[in-house]
Amino acid sequence: MVSLGENYNKVTPEIIAELKNIAGPDNVATDELAIEAYSYDESGKVYARMPDVVVKPENTQQVSSVMKLANRERIPVTARGAGSGIAGGAIPIEGGILLSLERMNRVLEIDKINRVAVVEPGVVTNDLCQMVLKEGLMYAGYPMSTETSFIGGNIATNAGGAKVIRYGSTRRHVLGIEVVLPTGDVLQLGGRIRKQTWGYDLLQIIIGSEGTLGVVTKAILNLEPAPGDTVTFLAPFPSIEEAVEAVAAILRAGVVLMACEFMDQLSAKCATQYHNTTFPMQDEAKAFLIIQVEGQTPEQLDMYIEKVGETCLEHGAMEVFTAESSTESRNIWKVRESFAEAVRAVDPNASLSGDMVVPMSKISEMVKAVEEAAKKYDITIALGGHIADGNIHPLFFKPDRIPLEEWPDFVENIVDELIGVAISLGGVGSGEHGVGFLKKHTFMKYEAKSKLEVMRGIKRAFDPNGILNPGKLFE
Amino acid sequence: MVSLGENYNKVTPEIIAELKNIAGPDNVATDELAIEAYSYDESGKVYARMPDVVVKPENTQQVSSVMKLANRERIPVTARGAGSGIAGGAIPIEGGILLSLERMNRVLEIDKINRVAVVEPGVVTNDLCQMVLKEGLMYAGYPMSTETSFIGGNIATNAGGAKVIRYGSTRRHVLGIEVVLPTGDVLQLGGRIRKQTWGYDLLQIIIGSEGTLGVVTKAILNLEPAPGDTVTFLAPFPSIEEAVEAVAAILRAGVVLMACEFMDQLSAKCATQYHNTTFPMQDEAKAFLIIQVEGQTPEQLDMYIEKVGETCLEHGAMEVFTAESSTESRNIWKVRESFAEAVRAVDPNASLSGDMVVPMSKISEMVKAVEEAAKKYDITIALGGHIADGNIHPLFFKPDRIPLEEWPDFVENIVDELIGVAISLGGVGSGEHGVGFLKKHTFMKYEAKSKLEVMRGIKRAFDPNGILNPGKLFE
Repeated sequence: MVSLGENYNKVTPEIIAELKNIAGPDNVATDELAIEAYSYDESGKVYARMPDVVVKPENTQQVSSVMKLANRERIPVTARGAGSGIAGGAIPIEGGILLSLERMNRVLEIDKINRVAVVEPGVVTNDLCQMVLKEGLMYAGYPMSTETSFIGGNIATNAGGAKVIRYGSTRRHVLGIEVVLPTGDVLQLGGRIRKQTWGYDLLQIIIGSEGTLGVVTKAILNLEPAPGDTVTFLAPFPSIEEAVEAVAAILRAGVVLMACEFMDQLSAKCATQYHNTTFPMQDEAKAFLIIQVEGQTPEQLDMYIEKVGETCLEHGAMEVFTAESSTESRNIWKVRESFAEAVRAVDPNASLSGDMVVPMSKISEMVKAVEEAAKKYDITIALGGHIADGNIHPLFFKPDRIPLEEWPDFVENIVDELIGVAISLGGVGSGEHGVGFLKKHTFMKYEAKSKLEVMRGIKRAFDPNGILNPGKLFE
Repeated sequence: MVSLGENYNKVTPEIIAELKNIAGPDNVATDELAIEAYSYDESGKVYARMPDVVVKPENTQQVSSVMKLANRERIPVTARGAGSGIAGGAIPIEGGILLSLERMNRVLEIDKINRVAVVEPGVVTNDLCQMVLKEGLMYAGYPMSTETSFIGGNIATNAGGAKVIRYGSTRRHVLGIEVVLPTGDVLQLGGRIRKQTWGYDLLQIIIGSEGTLGVVTKAILNLEPAPGDTVTFLAPFPSIEEAVEAVAAILRAGVVLMACEFMDQLSAKCATQYHNTTFPMQDEAKAFLIIQVEGQTPEQLDMYIEKVGETCLEHGAMEVFTAESSTESRNIWKVRESFAEAVRAVDPNASLSGDMVVPMSKISEMVKAVEEAAKKYDITIALGGHIADGNIHPLFFKPDRIPLEEWPDFVENIVDELIGVAISLGGVGSGEHGVGFLKKHTFMKYEAKSKLEVMRGIKRAFDPNGILNPGKLFE
């Protein structure tokens, strides 16, 4: 084990003074009221743990100095982006220093020739998306929480989102990073290049490592040419199975999809209600597909429109609606994007923890397992997700009969069981949220001992004293 | 340092007997004549080192047993695919066991629903490409040496090729692997899925690790829908700079390229001569672009054809030729693909070692550095490469005045210098060949000490006794 557990040292007044020296007194907080907001993420306040001190560096040098200090004094450090994660990855489990990257929020450069953006980790994803769009480019690595999430957090969790089917997860869009190691050393990895075989690809192992190996202080991000005209479809289905089969058929037909999302009846009801709208056939349909296609020419777009429409109808769609305007399209996407918020609006204690991935061919089986779990545990589950990626999000409503203090264990036990099913179907326990704190016991339970041992060895290679984001993943 | 150096043990008759027990007597060779072919790769015989024994396992169990034996007895093991590498990655520098994967050469499954192929590491890339094409699918991860290279070797080097600009390097197409660790433990990583955030992504660190972390015994590979109609262009230019600018302009115009290759006059002459053909304007043009575009509809193809043609002419192309038939297109590609073989046919001692990558915006500067090196060292250099990826291959002819025994040091010194230039331009020393044995001193010279230390820590996590492919990368 890497964890030092009780061997961590306390944050003393001397250390606070040194932190103030590094980041400036205004950027170091210890007041309970000021630091409370840094004690939890979107997994819910029920998982909160207070840091001893919050530090807000403004540049790489300051991050490095904080890490050197923490490494010398054996103080835990937890880096934090927007706190929009839902696996507890940014919760300071062992207290210590909470390193908030919120002040490092500049887009440093948009390099049109090499088609990259150079950004600091605290940039809000959507701000970058809007900025590059003005240059005729697109940042394709954004998650559903695009309006809040930071680029740094996206990198830490290898974030997904609606466009993974076409453009891949965040991993594919991170071409280079500057990263501060727990020792304070600063490494430059990758660059404004799209191919390399030059020693172990440390960039790749840091992406998705959930802030346990280093603190990303700069990122070089791939930009795609802005897409051509797009069309959004909304297709209600009488059953989830038929919706799944329609997606498989569309992909087999060679249609290039920009996005292919799924919501069950309950998800759709919550999310439309949240926006004071309705989906057509909302009371009859058991499932909705939201599909977006892009055409580089009008002919290509027409071809895709026809194929998607026909294939949906052939596979049981009750109707296929096409958004007639960009506003209409935007309204459909708003509903999908706020699925989780909408469920939380109905039940503030709802768990957003489900994020299983299975092979496309196994989605129906996975959905069945979710439905069975709902019956077995007598619980209401709303279901949505990135269906063409095999990635589903069951969201769990807290029944009144379960006391709040028993709820985290109760629901994580169900998630654990469903992750077991996903793994037995050839999948994994998380597609984009990560393991974080909430799923670490499940992760350790299902993964091979020898695999965990290798991961611990990698952790030691980066973080010999185990000070960075302790209590996550496998420790 | 991980290397045990002189602490490795010798292969004894008892160990040979045990190996014969594991793989069968016919699959264990010690006869000098039989094992000589395993002592070098395409970097040239001048770098050859003899193994003590060649073992040809036929399944994962046998690979695991060999690794357990070697780990127990501290015998070096070097895994080998087709031996088509050109960085010396498969050369058994410390002798010991040469583990040839040539008998594990089955395509186990083509899964059309999940769009993956499941293969053993000894499958020849082109065999897989042809097989999946019959199913209307494409394997896009292939390198230029597609007719010889094995899938296992492609994974070890994160191989590139002509289609990286559109589909990315091998990394993007490896969704899962079965890998035998140096301890003999077998890990399953990834799967028939395209997204995951489930602990450190060990799959990613193994891809491109040049056989130093584990032996891949199975791979789950992404398949793409077969492309629509394609058109190949051949465009002669009066200067390399103008060709580079044309490529940048085509990319800026948003044209999706399938491939975008470059050859200088000397490369073109060698390669056309090798095929008993000529390129148009071969005596006047200083550079040739070979560009392939794909259209999903005839209109899209026409649009791209027009844009590519116009943009090339605007940027100085002397003419733009379009292949009128698939045979004509095939003939152009044959010339490009055999660039290295053709140079070797003229000069068997030519070095194929150059593989720098720089940002697109720096290609002209990199090309200039190559031209200056040719003058400074009074040496002939043929230049080609994957220009739209910023990846160039300078190939070096041996001058008669340099004795053969001095040639490796002489040429690697030039490569070292050019890699220094690439790195100073924001690039790296290798895009697809790898560091292997030939570039390890250069790699260690230019990379930060703290980066190398982390890599060594990762090596230890996988291979505590340093038995797997010793003497490569950073040791």
